[in-house]
Amino acid sequence: MGKFETKDTIAVCNGKLLKLSHASEYTKTSMDVNVYLPPQYEAGAKKLPVLLYLSGLTCTPQNASEKSFLPYFASKHGFALIFPDTSPRGAGIDGEDESWDFGTGAGFYVDSVNGPWKKNYNMYSYVLKELLPLVSEEFVQLDVLENCSITGHSMGGYGAIMMYLRNPGQFKSCSAFAPIANPSVVPWGEKCFGNYLGEDKTEWYKYDPCHLVKTYAGNPGVADEKILIHVGTKDVFNYRDNQLRCENLVEAAKGTKLADSIDLNVVDGYDHSYYFISSFVPEHVEFHLKYLTK
Amino acid sequence: MGKFETKDTIAVCNGKLLKLSHASEYTKTSMDVNVYLPPQYEAGAKKLPVLLYLSGLTCTPQNASEKSFLPYFASKHGFALIFPDTSPRGAGIDGEDESWDFGTGAGFYVDSVNGPWKKNYNMYSYVLKELLPLVSEEFVQLDVLENCSITGHSMGGYGAIMMYLRNPGQFKSCSAFAPIANPSVVPWGEKCFGNYLGEDKTEWYKYDPCHLVKTYAGNPGVADEKILIHVGTKDVFNYRDNQLRCENLVEAAKGTKLADSIDLNVVDGYDHSYYFISSFVPEHVEFHLKYLTK
Repeated sequence: MGKFETKDTIAVCNGKLLKLSHASEYTKTSMDVNVYLPPQYEAGAKKLPVLLYLSGLTCTPQNASEKSFLPYFASKHGFALIFPDTSPRGAGIDGEDESWDFGTGAGFYVDSVNGPWKKNYNMYSYVLKELLPLVSEEFVQLDVLENCSITGHSMGGYGAIMMYLRNPGQFKSCSAFAPIANPSVVPWGEKCFGNYLGEDKTEWYKYDPCHLVKTYAGNPGVADEKILIHVGTKDVFNYRDNQLRCENLVEAAKGTKLADSIDLNVVDGYDHSYYFISSFVPEHVEFHLKYLTK
Repeated sequence: MGKFETKDTIAVCNGKLLKLSHASEYTKTSMDVNVYLPPQYEAGAKKLPVLLYLSGLTCTPQNASEKSFLPYFASKHGFALIFPDTSPRGAGIDGEDESWDFGTGAGFYVDSVNGPWKKNYNMYSYVLKELLPLVSEEFVQLDVLENCSITGHSMGGYGAIMMYLRNPGQFKSCSAFAPIANPSVVPWGEKCFGNYLGEDKTEWYKYDPCHLVKTYAGNPGVADEKILIHVGTKDVFNYRDNQLRCENLVEAAKGTKLADSIDLNVVDGYDHSYYFISSFVPEHVEFHLKYLTK
């Protein structure tokens, strides 16, 4: 399979979960990625839509593959899933393994411009300029570049909204589960942006959804554009630690192109876990299916 | 909540997952159990059906709660779930924590009659004589004792079939994911039965589905009785290590009441993991719904 090494192929919900790895030019490491091919995937058939799922802090491609139950719905509706990793691993940089919310497992989907991090911590370009084209090239029956939506959880929810706002037209639709919506002003974001991007906050704002939304021009050709977001009232990261600030995005969008388009749902009793994610995966899938071309 | 202590209540799929613990008379330890109440559960409403899920080696009540996606279907169809633990924990017996396939996490759903194990390792009576009556008593809107089906995975798949065959009429229906179908003749069973039950093999046969099926008289009042079983061709425990012997149960059932009733499905490419379980949970749920009274 060209540049991918297939580490494992697992039958899941009548389709196949491929555990792949490949050498990355952007991270200068070997990167793992899981790709789920639904049973509708066949050589020669028409190209299938794709949902890109960005995971949160500490996650590998395995967590959401196993716990989100997205493959069940991908199988039912005939779309593929891409689960990238959350950082380079084994880059060998001092301090990369010292905390769970920075370095390994915490790439924050940025291109680093600071210190020792800039050689490897380039998850923004890795995902958009390397991984998606590579999946498109290797799995020709997936419409990765023309018919793809994006979602994610926590750090990955931030990543999804950020990539969507920075690249109008690249994704058909965007949703997020408990995203870090305003990373510039919360401890997780300050730690990662400070290290990966340095002290100049104009660099930070290039990745902060609450800043990006201000100049966002809209998704060309998409009618009734929305960004669907869920967060639980028992999510301690949003409502105790103030790390997510989901409400800030609704506020920031006022007077912008997305003024009435941030569909934030605060749901009673849900936490930050995969119990929460899998509970709202059916609704997020329905949402993306409205925008993806079948 | 009476004898249960509620450790956590988590919103899941519009219902509630309760993480409970209680002091057990049968294991002489504190036992954890998860109970999922679907949104249809309300005081005063009619009693809901129940599915009892027995987990496999090493599992706690958390694994299947999080990875099986059973709550999604329980919520959709209005039944409750009970996820017991797989052994006593912290009994303080020499050797109970030395291996993953014996002792802690490996109670094998028997009542021990041998050595130091007999004081605590009584999971058979614990589940049937203590846990189910207690859940029935505390959650009066669940029809635990009259309208309950049983399923499980691996050691828990064996436990489900064994409890079903030993107690005709107790459960409406039985299914299993990759069960240890003939524990008397495989290393996992020999190790656990040998320690918990001693050398007398007549004690072992009281728990072995391949022996129990020989004298099984049928489930009273149940038309078209079946036991639904799935096992994957890439399940190394069945097809490399010969620990499951699912095919032996079909063979053992010949000439018995269940001669044409062991519905064993060998499914291509599936392994022993929760990817496999969650892939066939929808079919097992449909199966049990045919037998449970709605």
